[in-house]
Amino acid sequence: MYVVMVYDVAVERVAKVLKVGRRYLTWVQNSVLEGELSPARFARLKAEVAKVIESSDAVRFYVLPDKGALRVEVLGTSKNEPSQFI
Amino acid sequence: MYVVMVYDVAVERVAKVLKVGRRYLTWVQNSVLEGELSPARFARLKAEVAKVIESSDAVRFYVLPDKGALRVEVLGTSKNEPSQFI
Repeated sequence: MYVVMVYDVAVERVAKVLKVGRRYLTWVQNSVLEGELSPARFARLKAEVAKVIESSDAVRFYVLPDKGALRVEVLGTSKNEPSQFI
Repeated sequence: MYVVMVYDVAVERVAKVLKVGRRYLTWVQNSVLEGELSPARFARLKAEVAKVIESSDAVRFYVLPDKGALRVEVLGTSKNEPSQFI
């Protein structure tokens, strides 16, 4: 499955969420990671994220059977490293 | 087509990008909007976003032929209004 993870968490938890996310997915833009995951690894990612966030945070996963039909378009710059931890 | 728009822009441009985005898509989480768009409306959305961002900003569109195969999972809270303009 192909997963896009978008997080909106309190600034004091961003580094932790990003650290967990980068063990499973590729950082593509501040607050956004994506990549191929097996169902088992996706379950582990969610379990780990759930441990580091609070109920006021929001982490959204867009899940597709595969990347096949997905097209990604970028306006502006395609960032390569987290400039600030957002 | 189903479009997910994720933006990472300088704070002084967030309100403008959000305003444009909300004319075409539904806000679902800070920095994230999504919804059904015709190819013509998607082209207009991109043109309008391009006018308000700078090259240092990043706006990523995930485009699918339809929402059919897409599954969305949320951890934490499903926000209903932009708490802060991020």
